[in-house]
Amino acid sequence: MIRSSLPRLEVCLTPALLSHMELVGRVVVIIDVLRATTTIPTALFHGARKVIPVDSVEKCIALGEELGAITAGERDGHLAPGLKHGNSPLEYPREFIEGKTLVLTTTNGTRLLHMANHADRIVTGSFGNLSAVCDYLLLQEKPVVLACAGWKDRVNLEDTLLAGAIIQRVKEHYQVACDAALMAELLFLQVRGDLFGSMKQASHVQRLSNYGLEADIRHCLLSDTAPVLPVLEDGALILEKPGQAG
Amino acid sequence: MIRSSLPRLEVCLTPALLSHMELVGRVVVIIDVLRATTTIPTALFHGARKVIPVDSVEKCIALGEELGAITAGERDGHLAPGLKHGNSPLEYPREFIEGKTLVLTTTNGTRLLHMANHADRIVTGSFGNLSAVCDYLLLQEKPVVLACAGWKDRVNLEDTLLAGAIIQRVKEHYQVACDAALMAELLFLQVRGDLFGSMKQASHVQRLSNYGLEADIRHCLLSDTAPVLPVLEDGALILEKPGQAG
Repeated sequence: MIRSSLPRLEVCLTPALLSHMELVGRVVVIIDVLRATTTIPTALFHGARKVIPVDSVEKCIALGEELGAITAGERDGHLAPGLKHGNSPLEYPREFIEGKTLVLTTTNGTRLLHMANHADRIVTGSFGNLSAVCDYLLLQEKPVVLACAGWKDRVNLEDTLLAGAIIQRVKEHYQVACDAALMAELLFLQVRGDLFGSMKQASHVQRLSNYGLEADIRHCLLSDTAPVLPVLEDGALILEKPGQAG
Repeated sequence: MIRSSLPRLEVCLTPALLSHMELVGRVVVIIDVLRATTTIPTALFHGARKVIPVDSVEKCIALGEELGAITAGERDGHLAPGLKHGNSPLEYPREFIEGKTLVLTTTNGTRLLHMANHADRIVTGSFGNLSAVCDYLLLQEKPVVLACAGWKDRVNLEDTLLAGAIIQRVKEHYQVACDAALMAELLFLQVRGDLFGSMKQASHVQRLSNYGLEADIRHCLLSDTAPVLPVLEDGALILEKPGQAG
């Protein structure tokens, strides 16, 4: 295989950099490890019909009433006023979410989903569905942007580490075409033996830990707890259907 | 010392993120390792009177004629048409630059110098003046932004590594307040034993190597080859005077 004919793989470290990247024709993987893109595949894996990401609390409430759906979300790491449920993957076991629709709004992740709407295909990635994401990308053979949600236009460690974890698994099949990708992989290789330990200094973890959410953080760093691929179709995240890959 | 009373230290990984950061009251260290902020202290260390950064080739030529100064700069890694000299620190030995004024324009670094003009104080950093930068910061006791020039609004490895090198030396005296800083330090600690080796995959190095500039790259990764601190005063970079620190 001639390496230069491989599709490009790039990393966008924060939403503030997304406008500088070409998304047309790309598969974009939205990454918000703590916690939106861990919660989304968890809900779908546990039988949710769909997850509808919305960018405001008001829309979340209105759409939830219209559809008779579960409304959930956070702002700045807290349950948003007016919503019934939070952004923790642990809140969505099968006995609660099966057969239901979840309308979700979060500080960073759902916003980024909307910003990437001119991509060829939008999927979501986390450690929870790491293998599912990698398997999907390898079947697509298209250029990829790994788009980290970060925290309010800043970079964050956990999303960068997940980007690095994906790159480490798929890089032989891509031109890894930016230093952000190189840095993400170096970081992941350095700390993969103790992800939770490496995250103790991370700003987001310190923020969430202050709210007593260490169990969430530990869960969100585990691989393949929600081994499915959410894809965006008509404004909702649904499970990728077998015929869609490739 | 109470840690929370320490000044904040943040890292801005690319110029595209600078507008999201508070610069008022901050010391901003402009970092463009390959090669502007290596060349600037080198020229000053070798006796240049001042280095005037300008953001266009046209201004560089006009100001050079007006002042009878050396005009230098590059665009996309090449000598810019109409300018007499390039952006390599190796082009500015004492016998050439002593007593002269250098007007410099580069793809990334000089642009960033102008973008940061509302900072309290602007200095330039590279491996070449790493110790001088750290000594200066520790005397200031002010909040710091390490501002990486990157490459055309993308992050790059070498500027991030220099930020990490600075953080590794001064972090006990600051609140290291963002994940970009944490990531920069982790990366630096991982590769500091072989900076040149780690850079072989970096986009900027691959770009420059294509132009036959490996000697430049090796030189720009050496510590303290130009042990002085350029500070921006009235639009020109000059040597920090003894009375200014602290």
